[in-house]
Amino acid sequence: MTEKILDILKNSNDFISGEVIAKELKVSRVSISKNIKKLKDMGYDIKSVTNKGYILIKDNKLFNKFEIEKQINTKVLGNKVYFFDEISSTNEYAKSLANSNEEEGAIVIADCQTNGKGRLDKKWESNKGEGLFMSILLRPNVHINNIVQITLLSGICICNGIKKATGLDASIKWPNDIVVNGKKVCGILTELSAQIENVSYVILGIGINVNNKNFNDELKDKATSIFLETNKEIERAKLLSYILNELEEKYLKFKEIKDFTLFLPQYKALCVNLNKEVKAIYKNEEIIGTVVDISPLGEIILKTDKGMLNISSGFVSLRNVDGKYV
Amino acid sequence: MTEKILDILKNSNDFISGEVIAKELKVSRVSISKNIKKLKDMGYDIKSVTNKGYILIKDNKLFNKFEIEKQINTKVLGNKVYFFDEISSTNEYAKSLANSNEEEGAIVIADCQTNGKGRLDKKWESNKGEGLFMSILLRPNVHINNIVQITLLSGICICNGIKKATGLDASIKWPNDIVVNGKKVCGILTELSAQIENVSYVILGIGINVNNKNFNDELKDKATSIFLETNKEIERAKLLSYILNELEEKYLKFKEIKDFTLFLPQYKALCVNLNKEVKAIYKNEEIIGTVVDISPLGEIILKTDKGMLNISSGFVSLRNVDGKYV
Repeated sequence: MTEKILDILKNSNDFISGEVIAKELKVSRVSISKNIKKLKDMGYDIKSVTNKGYILIKDNKLFNKFEIEKQINTKVLGNKVYFFDEISSTNEYAKSLANSNEEEGAIVIADCQTNGKGRLDKKWESNKGEGLFMSILLRPNVHINNIVQITLLSGICICNGIKKATGLDASIKWPNDIVVNGKKVCGILTELSAQIENVSYVILGIGINVNNKNFNDELKDKATSIFLETNKEIERAKLLSYILNELEEKYLKFKEIKDFTLFLPQYKALCVNLNKEVKAIYKNEEIIGTVVDISPLGEIILKTDKGMLNISSGFVSLRNVDGKYV
Repeated sequence: MTEKILDILKNSNDFISGEVIAKELKVSRVSISKNIKKLKDMGYDIKSVTNKGYILIKDNKLFNKFEIEKQINTKVLGNKVYFFDEISSTNEYAKSLANSNEEEGAIVIADCQTNGKGRLDKKWESNKGEGLFMSILLRPNVHINNIVQITLLSGICICNGIKKATGLDASIKWPNDIVVNGKKVCGILTELSAQIENVSYVILGIGINVNNKNFNDELKDKATSIFLETNKEIERAKLLSYILNELEEKYLKFKEIKDFTLFLPQYKALCVNLNKEVKAIYKNEEIIGTVVDISPLGEIILKTDKGMLNISSGFVSLRNVDGKYV
């Protein structure tokens, strides 16, 4: 009932009377006002004016379990939604779920994180109303050497999801920063527990800068948000559902074929580093080379003065030769 | 003091009087008899006969923290020893230590496991007095794609350790079963927790059949023990220390160079499958081919009718073409 009333309010551009809503849904006026109160308690800004009725003040920043479950139409990913207004870290919570035998597909989402984590134990800015912070529990039946490929795959899906939700051309800075106009808009933190041949679980942690209006001095040259690029506040639940749709399709396919070759052309088409000259800090040495290819294992293949070099992520920091982030 | 008395008893082939021991160690007779009692409580079989003194009845099956710490001479691996007469699973205990920030090098050893695990969640026979069940906590600062290589490395070290302790020629059945005369004598179960670029910990679980006198019908054609191959009961603490010595040297080197190429020739020299025709069940299909090489990633490279095939462990069960285990 609450959901149906919300739909009517969302589709109405003017005041709509309780009587009209009650008639449409074939319920009593009392039931309508009870559910309106419930929606207000959930954070929806609904004005009521005598003789005119109700109007919903649109707020694209509103983000809750209700909105998310309404948007999601995937079968596996998001089959269970854990939503928090505030949490320490969605990845940490998802790991504890995984250790308690939660099934594949559960997602943990928070409006803000007090201890959001980025790659290599860096802090990830996670303020209220600004970001999409989501951790997805996967149980792929693959060898650990395939996990990097799942991360690369999720990069492709996030780019496609952002494009569909916002029209923005998002790209991938190797290995898996998502960038728009040369600045980072999303990071992916993949954590796993495994035996060599038997991955117990993978947590795909995704942090997207959505409605951020500005960044601090340290970040502002290399970070951006969807708002800063489009000048629009977008609904995080909608963005989330686009990304899950993309990811469900590609992830289930990958689980079946256990081979990244099929997806490699898409990854390469989105990768901003390909055919660019880059500076890599590798084993404490500065190497300059041209990224001539990406291997199916997710390594960059650098052409250097001393020959070809395959580099895995992790111990390399990639910059353009001019020192810029991308 | 206890340790010194034990050393004297171990080095004495006949009865030795309390007076002689007291004089040698410059302590009182009372102190000697107190410590003899302590040793008896620890499980040492010490006979005492009036006017003759003490004699230690040698028992190579005796296995305790004291014996282990006396034998170990490595610096990192075994810097902390957790010993249990009985435990559910040494790997499970080591994981809980790792999650509580225990440092690299801690080892968990048990005389028997009530719920010993093998690869792919198979049970591992873990009876009292028979096996060496050990889990080593490692914190290698490497990419997850290097973890398979650490497992391969440990295979080399276990073969070398068995050779030094017993004279037996142990080999490796790809990827990491240790075999003697065509039967499995040791299994390795590697578990890990990681971010892609930042392995939090690796637990190297090693189970060696040492003093087993027989195996059940299901196992007897493919399992053996060091006792069955040498007809000698060997001291598990000594075997353990030989393996740790080998592993410490190679593991620290690998951590430094992060490259398996140096060790690949040793692995290949020990691998029983190389240049053999094998039957592999791969992606639900039976493939027959010749193992022509091992890649630095630890894949077998199979030459088949349809061309070359690189196969990772995990989804392949390797048998000789005649169906035999090795």
